[in-house]
Amino acid sequence: MNSIDLSNESSTQIPDASSWTHLKLERRSAAYWRVTFDHPPINTITATTVTELSELVELIERDTQLNVIVFDSANPDFFLAHYDTDSIAAIRGRARGAGSEFVLACDLRFASRENTLLGQFEVGAGFIPGGGPMARLSRLVGRGRALEILLVADDFDGPRAEQYGYVNRAVADDELDKEVEAIASRLARFDHEAIARTKFYVDQVTLPPDSELPPALTDFFQSFGRPGTLARAAKLQKLGYNTVSDLERQLGKRVVEAAPDVAS
Amino acid sequence: MNSIDLSNESSTQIPDASSWTHLKLERRSAAYWRVTFDHPPINTITATTVTELSELVELIERDTQLNVIVFDSANPDFFLAHYDTDSIAAIRGRARGAGSEFVLACDLRFASRENTLLGQFEVGAGFIPGGGPMARLSRLVGRGRALEILLVADDFDGPRAEQYGYVNRAVADDELDKEVEAIASRLARFDHEAIARTKFYVDQVTLPPDSELPPALTDFFQSFGRPGTLARAAKLQKLGYNTVSDLERQLGKRVVEAAPDVAS
Amino acid sequence: MNSIDLSNESSTQIPDASSWTHLKLERRSAAYWRVTFDHPPINTITATTVTELSELVELIERDTQLNVIVFDSANPDFFLAHYDTDSIAAIRGRARGAGSEFVLACDLRFASRENTLLGQFEVGAGFIPGGGPMARLSRLVGRGRALEILLVADDFDGPRAEQYGYVNRAVADDELDKEVEAIASRLARFDHEAIARTKFYVDQVTLPPDSELPPALTDFFQSFGRPGTLARAAKLQKLGYNTVSDLERQLGKRVVEAAPDVAS
Repeated sequence: MNSIDLSNESSTQIPDASSWTHLKLERRSAAYWRVTFDHPPINTITATTVTELSELVELIERDTQLNVIVFDSANPDFFLAHYDTDSIAAIRGRARGAGSEFVLACDLRFASRENTLLGQFEVGAGFIPGGGPMARLSRLVGRGRALEILLVADDFDGPRAEQYGYVNRAVADDELDKEVEAIASRLARFDHEAIARTKFYVDQVTLPPDSELPPALTDFFQSFGRPGTLARAAKLQKLGYNTVSDLERQLGKRVVEAAPDVAS
Repeated sequence: MNSIDLSNESSTQIPDASSWTHLKLERRSAAYWRVTFDHPPINTITATTVTELSELVELIERDTQLNVIVFDSANPDFFLAHYDTDSIAAIRGRARGAGSEFVLACDLRFASRENTLLGQFEVGAGFIPGGGPMARLSRLVGRGRALEILLVADDFDGPRAEQYGYVNRAVADDELDKEVEAIASRLARFDHEAIARTKFYVDQVTLPPDSELPPALTDFFQSFGRPGTLARAAKLQKLGYNTVSDLERQLGKRVVEAAPDVAS
Repeated sequence: MNSIDLSNESSTQIPDASSWTHLKLERRSAAYWRVTFDHPPINTITATTVTELSELVELIERDTQLNVIVFDSANPDFFLAHYDTDSIAAIRGRARGAGSEFVLACDLRFASRENTLLGQFEVGAGFIPGGGPMARLSRLVGRGRALEILLVADDFDGPRAEQYGYVNRAVADDELDKEVEAIASRLARFDHEAIARTKFYVDQVTLPPDSELPPALTDFFQSFGRPGTLARAAKLQKLGYNTVSDLERQLGKRVVEAAPDVAS
């Protein structure tokens, strides 16, 4: 959702990260920050999350020394690809829908081999993914696999996500933190200008143009106006969507239960 | 070969699939069709095949409820990528040349792990592949692997096709039908609009522009006017091309025998 | 570095490959040449190398029968992608920095499974890679993995290079020569026109435009004007850069030692 400008242009106050309730910011050094997304029980995204992320963006924009940010339990949506800073997603657990879109907007993705569920379930629930995954997956994994992820709308575990290029690599769960920490510490010691300029050239080739993202987001919102989509959403709610439930554990497989009882 | 308009614009009669002799159409539901390509002994493509495929296109165009088509023993050429319908190739056996081009024009590709031979042997026989594989493979698997598939012109088995991204996945032969059936049944129950709009955005990024395909097709036809190509084709015919033969079984490996006896 | 025109337009003399000291040219047939890069002890690139490569380009341009060139111990930089000839890199040992850039400019890449170290260590040393790897890796392996190769700047062994698509395939070390030889011999017997035209269509989709490469090269040279980069380069020199040393053996891992002693 690069299309949403989350920054507050007229702000003169520096955001106070210590007041956040969904994000925890740890400044390990001037060059290396860690952001933990923590909103129990299942890390849903609310207006509060969006506000805190917007404040995080503002902090990043004010900073000239930051080389790398690591997100863990990454879940929400958005934005970070345009900055001079490398953003790494350390993925453990579920990152579906907007969670997957967030992960796709990061620069590097490392996933727990044993404990990862990535997916774009939206089409199965009757709506169009709005946060950029068509733009990003098409460029990342190629047409065939992008269409499978988006249209078949099933969950991907770590090894398959690695095989498809959905993540950089799947790492053994008990090695993941160490591996991501090693990469982040390394990047923190590198020259900021060398990172920024090199990334700039990759951005030129690989980032979707900003104009590509808004139409799908519009479609996403419009899909909620269609009766068929509302009926599917209602069925999912009843089955336990966004709660601690078997539906959430197996959403990729079970999202088809959102369909009307008689196949149309 | 998106460049060929196979539809008959002035047609007012609905094509009758029951009269087809190369294609068998099974309408499993309003949303899910299966097309089996069956032209013994080795599924060659003739004018009849092209006519029947053109009628199939017309049926697809007339339909607004169709979510998914599965092709098995897919072999021929063409077209299907622009429709609102997801087209899946279930690959078992050989799909070389135009067969591979057909498979590449489908949206999703699942191949038997044990019984698949995919390849573009054309360069080995002295001509230029005409049905779009340069356009599609370049975007699907990247420059290095696309050049290898097209220029080295050897056969790819299931595991290597999966590794290169030539297919979405290789699936154990005795699981392939079940897996493709599960995916197709699932897609059949999904919302048509959600599939169509989501696919539209992937199409924007991943489909080659229509103008890209005709020049290579022209080259394909022109290559038959070159004496060297005719001599290579004649050698292949003598060795058993398009018949039940060892040459056909190992075409990728043996296509080099089309070369003049003394390396030029 | 497609941006540098190495050919000598006014030359009327045919270069004499037998006078070369860094490159060894073996004409196995009219259609198949082999070029061995041999500049002990660690194949560094000097002005001599560049001159000899420029003469090689001239020989290729004068030739109309050449189908394939194999490079072994490939190391230097540049150029070859625009020719009608398929260029194959057989990778054994280290190909970092400009070596990796050379390999990326080849059409096909086959790497020893056991004895390969590929990488772009430049960002770790404080400068911007100048020979086109942002342009090429972005298109070859996708954004996430391109950013990892370039920004994390670590070495890639054969299996991981294969997994990421950095090379076509990793081949068991004792099979590598046989495999590359088989592919090259095969290509040597194929029709020159079929190779050239087919490659032309892949080039259209996959090659970066010439205008994309010069700015990063300019950045590369400018990075040496920055004091921070000079300090990092001086540290690497002291640790054994470009000599037979442990630093060279483990450059990917140890390049972070170029950083100032206190993390900034």
